[in-house]
Amino acid sequence: AGTITLVYSHDTRELTDILTDIQHQHHAAVVSTTHIHLDHHHCLEVLIVRGEGREIRRIADRLIGTKGVIHGKLTLTTTGEGMV
Amino acid sequence: AGTITLVYSHDTRELTDILTDIQHQHHAAVVSTTHIHLDHHHCLEVLIVRGEGREIRRIADRLIGTKGVIHGKLTLTTTGEGMV
Amino acid sequence: AGTITLVYSHDTRELTDILTDIQHQHHAAVVSTTHIHLDHHHCLEVLIVRGEGREIRRIADRLIGTKGVIHGKLTLTTTGEGMV
Amino acid sequence: AGTITLVYSHDTRELTDILTDIQHQHHAAVVSTTHIHLDHHHCLEVLIVRGEGREIRRIADRLIGTKGVIHGKLTLTTTGEGMV
Repeated sequence: AGTITLVYSHDTRELTDILTDIQHQHHAAVVSTTHIHLDHHHCLEVLIVRGEGREIRRIADRLIGTKGVIHGKLTLTTTGEGMV
Repeated sequence: AGTITLVYSHDTRELTDILTDIQHQHHAAVVSTTHIHLDHHHCLEVLIVRGEGREIRRIADRLIGTKGVIHGKLTLTTTGEGMV
Repeated sequence: AGTITLVYSHDTRELTDILTDIQHQHHAAVVSTTHIHLDHHHCLEVLIVRGEGREIRRIADRLIGTKGVIHGKLTLTTTGEGMV
Repeated sequence: AGTITLVYSHDTRELTDILTDIQHQHHAAVVSTTHIHLDHHHCLEVLIVRGEGREIRRIADRLIGTKGVIHGKLTLTTTGEGMV
């Protein structure tokens, strides 16, 4: 399990659609997405993700690498014991 | 305070962008939006909203009335005492 | 799919623990819970739930019926076609 | 703005109550908390926080330092320009 945090401007043409589309392609791994509207332009989005570390990293790379994403960060919560 | 629940298909051209745009116009009232990807096509979105009942109703009407929204529901949690 | 909205005071002794416990007993049906702190005392909690209508209704009844819950509401988004 | 990710076992006596209590003491800074029930025992909780970096760090320290929290991580999204 882990979280992916993204900050972006929803003014960037079609960026919201592109990010939503990537998430839907991985809908089995994306448990939920919480979005807050920071101001008229900027969004903070936090995805809760579950699955194999490798797939999660790939989703994070695609989202964070999307043109227009200002800030992105992946936090993995798997412990050494692989507990979660 | 209250919640607005929406179900829509993110395949509808630009619908995600339109809904996000409406939410940003009311960013002071929209506390957070949680989005789950039901399947490859359908989204369930829950907005937590705070503010005057009248403004909340207007936001709900705009979102639920947007072409492509399959299901929409406003739940107001204000009690008689106006507690929350 | 559906949502369960709850308003309660976290001052009620052990209420948060009791509600969390009920949700864990049904963790396969409870996709995510979003919680906002309305003020020093009151919480608004929105659960996104998936599963059979009957089980969802049972979870909602248990949560809403818990002593100390001020307001509770279940919204089911299943359409006639059973699409979601 | 930023996010605080926590993993804990809700079996730890009163831990959920303690964490909720800390969040309520800082309710102006905690925008929303999304909680997923990983299994019968473990929770993943993501807080979206806004405010001064210093206050956010203090909240994160208190939450992550609470006995019983297995994993905790603060992600700040402030850019160099202090944009968000």
